[in-house]
Amino acid sequence: MPDLSALLQPRTIAVIGASTQPDKVGGMPVRLLSELGYAGHIIPVHATAREVQGLPAVPSLDALDAPVDLAIVALPVSASLDAMRQLACNGTRAAVVFTSGFAETGGDGIAMQAELAALAQAHGITLLGPNCLGAMNPRERVFATFSPIPLTGLPPVGDVGLVSQSGAFGAYAFALAREASLGLSHWVTTGNEAGLHVADVIEWLARDDATRVILAYLEGCRDGDRLRRALAAARAAGKPVVVTKVGTTEAGARSAQSHTASLAGEDAVYQAVFDEYGVFRANTLDDFFRLGYVLSRGRRPTRWQPSAKEPANAVTPVALVTVSGGVGIMMADQAESLDLPMPPMPEDAAAALCSAIPFASTANPIDVTGQVVAQPAVLLDAIAATAQCPDYGSVVAFLAGGVGAPRIWPGLQETVDTLHRSGTAAPLLFSGLVDDDKRRWLEARGALVFREPAQAVQAVAVLARAAAQAASAQPEPAPATAALPVPDVPPEATSLSEFEAMQWLAACGIPSAPHGLARDADEAVRIAESIGYPVAIKLCSPDILHKSDVGGVVLNVISAQAARAAFAQVQAAAADHGTPARFDGALVARMVRGWGELMVGVRRDPVFGLVALAGIGGTAVEIFRQTAFGLAPLTHARARTMLRASRAQALLSGHRGHPAIDADAVAEVLVRVSQAAATLGPRLDTLEINPLIVTAQGVIAADAVVTLHATDKPSH
Amino acid sequence: MPDLSALLQPRTIAVIGASTQPDKVGGMPVRLLSELGYAGHIIPVHATAREVQGLPAVPSLDALDAPVDLAIVALPVSASLDAMRQLACNGTRAAVVFTSGFAETGGDGIAMQAELAALAQAHGITLLGPNCLGAMNPRERVFATFSPIPLTGLPPVGDVGLVSQSGAFGAYAFALAREASLGLSHWVTTGNEAGLHVADVIEWLARDDATRVILAYLEGCRDGDRLRRALAAARAAGKPVVVTKVGTTEAGARSAQSHTASLAGEDAVYQAVFDEYGVFRANTLDDFFRLGYVLSRGRRPTRWQPSAKEPANAVTPVALVTVSGGVGIMMADQAESLDLPMPPMPEDAAAALCSAIPFASTANPIDVTGQVVAQPAVLLDAIAATAQCPDYGSVVAFLAGGVGAPRIWPGLQETVDTLHRSGTAAPLLFSGLVDDDKRRWLEARGALVFREPAQAVQAVAVLARAAAQAASAQPEPAPATAALPVPDVPPEATSLSEFEAMQWLAACGIPSAPHGLARDADEAVRIAESIGYPVAIKLCSPDILHKSDVGGVVLNVISAQAARAAFAQVQAAAADHGTPARFDGALVARMVRGWGELMVGVRRDPVFGLVALAGIGGTAVEIFRQTAFGLAPLTHARARTMLRASRAQALLSGHRGHPAIDADAVAEVLVRVSQAAATLGPRLDTLEINPLIVTAQGVIAADAVVTLHATDKPSH
Repeated sequence: MPDLSALLQPRTIAVIGASTQPDKVGGMPVRLLSELGYAGHIIPVHATAREVQGLPAVPSLDALDAPVDLAIVALPVSASLDAMRQLACNGTRAAVVFTSGFAETGGDGIAMQAELAALAQAHGITLLGPNCLGAMNPRERVFATFSPIPLTGLPPVGDVGLVSQSGAFGAYAFALAREASLGLSHWVTTGNEAGLHVADVIEWLARDDATRVILAYLEGCRDGDRLRRALAAARAAGKPVVVTKVGTTEAGARSAQSHTASLAGEDAVYQAVFDEYGVFRANTLDDFFRLGYVLSRGRRPTRWQPSAKEPANAVTPVALVTVSGGVGIMMADQAESLDLPMPPMPEDAAAALCSAIPFASTANPIDVTGQVVAQPAVLLDAIAATAQCPDYGSVVAFLAGGVGAPRIWPGLQETVDTLHRSGTAAPLLFSGLVDDDKRRWLEARGALVFREPAQAVQAVAVLARAAAQAASAQPEPAPATAALPVPDVPPEATSLSEFEAMQWLAACGIPSAPHGLARDADEAVRIAESIGYPVAIKLCSPDILHKSDVGGVVLNVISAQAARAAFAQVQAAAADHGTPARFDGALVARMVRGWGELMVGVRRDPVFGLVALAGIGGTAVEIFRQTAFGLAPLTHARARTMLRASRAQALLSGHRGHPAIDADAVAEVLVRVSQAAATLGPRLDTLEINPLIVTAQGVIAADAVVTLHATDKPSH
Repeated sequence: MPDLSALLQPRTIAVIGASTQPDKVGGMPVRLLSELGYAGHIIPVHATAREVQGLPAVPSLDALDAPVDLAIVALPVSASLDAMRQLACNGTRAAVVFTSGFAETGGDGIAMQAELAALAQAHGITLLGPNCLGAMNPRERVFATFSPIPLTGLPPVGDVGLVSQSGAFGAYAFALAREASLGLSHWVTTGNEAGLHVADVIEWLARDDATRVILAYLEGCRDGDRLRRALAAARAAGKPVVVTKVGTTEAGARSAQSHTASLAGEDAVYQAVFDEYGVFRANTLDDFFRLGYVLSRGRRPTRWQPSAKEPANAVTPVALVTVSGGVGIMMADQAESLDLPMPPMPEDAAAALCSAIPFASTANPIDVTGQVVAQPAVLLDAIAATAQCPDYGSVVAFLAGGVGAPRIWPGLQETVDTLHRSGTAAPLLFSGLVDDDKRRWLEARGALVFREPAQAVQAVAVLARAAAQAASAQPEPAPATAALPVPDVPPEATSLSEFEAMQWLAACGIPSAPHGLARDADEAVRIAESIGYPVAIKLCSPDILHKSDVGGVVLNVISAQAARAAFAQVQAAAADHGTPARFDGALVARMVRGWGELMVGVRRDPVFGLVALAGIGGTAVEIFRQTAFGLAPLTHARARTMLRASRAQALLSGHRGHPAIDADAVAEVLVRVSQAAATLGPRLDTLEINPLIVTAQGVIAADAVVTLHATDKPSH
C-alpha cells in the first residue's frame, strides 16, 4: 500500500534546482509555496546563491542536518538522476521529479528512468514522475508543482481527489474545478509513473479521510493488478471513482503511446475492469467534471433499488416538475431511457394542483404550465408535495428562466430551506437559468443545479447508482476456483486438439456434444452409432489449425456409409496437405440441434490477465459486435450481466416460441469455462467455445479451440 | 406556401383584449411593443377604456377605418372565437391567438378550435395558435407575445430563425440564445397549430433573406407532407435545419400527446424523414443551441468531401493542435469516431516545431507541449502553418487556460487576424477557458470557441456535413414510379395470399424463389419436379394467417413421396382448423440456399405515408433491432444507405469467405419493392419480404406477406 503522506503532507520541502527567477520551472514551486502560505519549512537548494526568492538556500542536500520529507527535483535529466542518488542516501521520504526526457523519448531515457525507479524503490522513497507536473494539497497549501495556475486562484478546499497521468490535463482540470467551484482535497499528476501510478494515488485517496470522490485521468495502465487493487479499495471505502480513459480509438491509442509511453490496451477490457468495480466512466471533460460535481455535491435518492435489468445501475422513482410541457417531455424521454420510473403524483397533491391550474398535468412529468408566473405557489407546492411524498426518491424541477424571478425566488428559498431542514425530504435537482449566487445558495442546501434539463435527470441515475454501490461496498468475492481437472500438456505444445479440448471441458462439467476420437473408419462408425446420427466428422491434426479450409470437416453425417466416406475425406485432407501433417484421427461428434448459437471465450490481456468474453455466436457476433467482456474467473453475477449486455439473453427467454431456458445455468457454464481457463495458469493464451448451442436442455458446447503458450511463461 | 409577412412584419397591430395592467396576458404585448420600440401602429382594443398604457384604445374592431395587418387575441376561449368571427369579416391579414382551452383540453375545445381554423382558412387569415406564446421579429421590434422575457434583454439581431411548438420551450430558448449571444432573425411559437404548423414556419424561414439557419422544436407532426415540403425548401435554399423532436420514448410520447395533443408517431420514421432532408437532430437543449451556434457562426471547412461510408456525412481533414498531450488524445478519439482524417504535419512546419521544442509531437494531434508557456511563438506558428497548409480543411486548437494568458493573447490576436484577412486560411476552432470579451473578439474573426475540446472536433464534422449539403442542395429527385403491374384485388380483401404476393412481386421484377400453386398432391409433385427439390410446401388459405402455427408449413421436402405427404399434411391442417377455413391449395416453392437472410418491408405511417424498412432478417432482426427506415418509394442512394446503416451490407461484402455480391443490385431490389408497394396506393397496409435470401446470384425473395386496407380508404 503506497504512502503518499510525505508527498502530500510534508513538513519540510527541499527544492533541488531552485531558481532565483520565480517563473522558471525551478523557481515556481518556491514562489507558490511561499506566496500561497505553505506553513512548513522550504529549503531551496542552489549551487551558488545564498538566497532564493528571499529564502535562505543551501548549496546541496549534504548541508542539511536532517532528511527532508519531500524533495522537488527541477533539474535536467542527468543531473536529476545524480540528485536521486544523493536523496537515496540521506533518508528523504518522497521525491517529485518534473524532468522530462526519460522513457517518453526512448533510447537512453528508458535506462535512466529504470535507474531512477530502482533507486526510489531500494531506498523506500515515494517517487512521483518523472515528466510530471507534480502534486498539490490545497488544504495544507502544499504546491509541489511548476504550474503557475494556482497563482490565478484556487478552487475551494473540498472532498474531490483528482489524479491525472497527464500534467497539462491536470492543470486544465484544476482551472475547470476552480471555475466550477468544485472543492478539491488533493491534486496529483503522475507523468511517466516510474514510481507512483495513477492506481497508487487512487488507492491512497480511497483511504484518505479528506477525500470522498476520486476523479482519475488515465492514458494507459502498465500494471493491471495495481489498478484493480486500487479500484477495489475505493469501492470498499464507498468512494465513487470517475475515470476518463483516453485512447479509446486506434488513432487515440497511437497518440497515447507517443505521449507518455502508455500501453493503451483494448478499450473493451478496460471497460470490463471499470464495470467490475463500478467505476463511472467519462469520455469528455464536461462529463468528467459533471460526474465529479454530481457525486461530490449530490444527495443520494431517498428511495432506490438495484436494477434488475442492468446490475451496474440502480433505479429510483423520480418526480419531474416542469414549467414547460416541452421540456417535461424531454426529461421524460431521458428518464425512460435511464429506466427511472415516473409514478404519477399522489392524489391529494394532484387535486390541489388541478384546482389551482385546471390545465396542469398531474401525470409525471408534472406540468405546472406557464401559469406559474401568475401563481408561483403552485410550483412551490408541487415541489414540496413531491419531495415529501414517499413515492419519489428525487425531484427534478425545470424552472426555465424563472428560478431567479422576483415573484418566485423568495418562496423558492423558503420551500428549499424547509425541505432541507426536514432532513427527510427527497433531494432536489433544479434546471434552468440560475445566476451564480443563487446557485451557490441552492447547493449549500443540498440541491444540485444544471442548465441542461437532461443532465439533471442523468444526475439522478448517477446518484442512485452510487447509492447502490455504497450499499454493497463489498463487491461479490472472486469465486473460489473449483477443483477442476487440468489437462496434461507437454511443455512445447501451443494448442490442444479439438478432441483434447472437448474431453477436458466435458471433464470440467461443461455440457458438451457427445463425441469420440476415431483412428479408423470402423471406429468412426462405432462411435457414430453409439452417440447417434447425425454426427460431424472433423480432422484431428496438431499441424492443421484451419481444418475446414482444407476439407477437414464434414457435417450432417447421417449413415454408416456416409461416416466411412467422411472419415476417408478428412484423412485425405491431412495427406494432401502441402506440408507434412500428422494425422491423429477424426473427432466424431453428435450434431446438436438448437435455435441459437452463443460463443464464450477467455483470452489473456497483456495488462489485466485473463478476460472472458461472451455473446451471440455465428454471423451475428461478427456483424453486430455485441460481445461482452468480464474479468476471469467470472462471478455468477458478472456472467449474468454479460448475457444481458451481449443480448445473448434474448435467445434464452422464450425466443420465437422456443422454451425459455434457465439463464442461471447458462451463466454457470460461463463461470465454469472461465474457471477451466484459469486452471491452465500462465500457459493459457486463448480458449474459445463457438458455437455454444442453445437447446431446450440448456447450452451445449459443439466446438472448442484452446491455444497455449509454449513454455510456462506468458509472452509478456 | 404560407405567408408570414403580416405576422412578422406588420405595419399595424391590434391587441384585442388589451389590458391596462402591463403584466397581464392582454397587457404585455402593448407594453413590449411600446417600450421596446415597435415603429408601426399599435391599436389596443378595450371595451371600456379610452386609453391603454398611454395609447388611445378603440372599443372594438368595428371602430377602425382600415383592416389591421396583425391582430393579437388575448381573450377567454369563447370570446376569442367571437373575435375571430369579427376579424374574418374585416380583412385582417394575420392573427395570433394566445388563448388556451381549445383542442388540448378535448371535448368542446376540439370543435371550437376547428371553427377557429375554418374561419382563418376561409378568410385567408394567417393564424398562429391557439394556446401559443406568439411570435417576435427582433429586427423590426415586433413582439406579438405575452412572455415578459424580452423585458430583461434581447439577443442580438442575427440569422437564426427559431420556431417552437411549445411556448415555454420557446421562451427558455429565447433566454438561452440571449445568454449565448446567438443572433435571432425571428422567433415563433405555434402551440396547437390550428393554422400555422412548425412546418409552415420552417418553409417561410427557408425563403426569408434574414434567416440562414433554422432551429425547430417539435412535439409531433400531424401533416407529414407539409413537413417534408418545408424541409425540402430549406434544403433547396441551402439553409441547415436543426430539429429537436421530443417524445422519442414511450413515456415521452405519452406526455407529448397530453401536452399539445400531438401524435408523436414512431421515432424511427421521424428519423428517416430527417435523414432524407439532411436535418441536424438535437436531443438536448445543449445540442440544440450548440448546433445553432456552430451552423450560424462557423466557417465551412476549406476542404471536405462526401463520406463514402455514410452519405449523410462528409469527411474533412483536420489539424489538431494542443498544449496538452492528454487532451490531444481525447480529440483524436473524437475525430476518429467521426471519420475525420488527421494527416501529419507538413515536413517543413514539423521540422520547425521540433527544432523549437524537441519533445513536441508533429504527428497529428500536434502536441506543442506545456513548453508553450515559455515559447508562445511555437504554438502560434503551428496554428498558422496548419491553417495555411492545403492538407487541412479546419484547425482545432486546444489552448487550455492559455488563450488569455498575457504572453499568448497578443500574438494569438495577430495570428488570427492575419489568417482571417488572408481569406484562404482554414477555419479555426479553439477550445479552452476563454473570457467573454476574447471569445467575441475571436468569433468576430470567424473562429469558434468551445470549452469542451470534444465539441470543437464535433463542430468540424457538423460544418463539413453542412458544406456537403449546401453543395448538393437539390436532393436526389424522388424516383419515377416504374410502370409495375398492380395485383387485381377485390375491394373487401385484407391481404394477398402468399402465392398472390409471390406472383405479383415476381411480375414486378423482384427475384423470387421459383414456385407454383398446387390444388392437389399430383400437381404439387409436378411443380416440385419442374422447379427442382428441395421445396417448401405451404398452406394457402385466406382464413389462416399464421400457417406455421397450425402445421401448415413443411420445409426441406426432397422427394415426390415427401411432397405428397407434405401436401396431405397442410390440407389436413386447414381441415382440422377450429373454425371453418377455405383451402385454396398449397404453395410449392424452391428452397433457396444462401449464407444470410435480409428482410425488406414497406408500411404505412399515419403521418408520413409509406415507409420502407430493411435490415438483416431472421433472429438478428429481433435481437439487435438494427432495421433502417427510409421514405418510400426509395431512391437508390437511400436504399444503399439503409443497407449500410442496418449492417445488411456486411452480408454482401464477402462475408465469411462467401463471394461479394453487387450491392447496387440489392439496393435496386429494395427500390423496386418500395415502388411495388406504392402501386397499391392507399390500399397498402404492409408488405414484408422475410427472408430475402443472400446467394451468390444476388438476393431472392423466399416469403412475402401483404396486408391491405379493405376499401380504398386508408384507416387514418
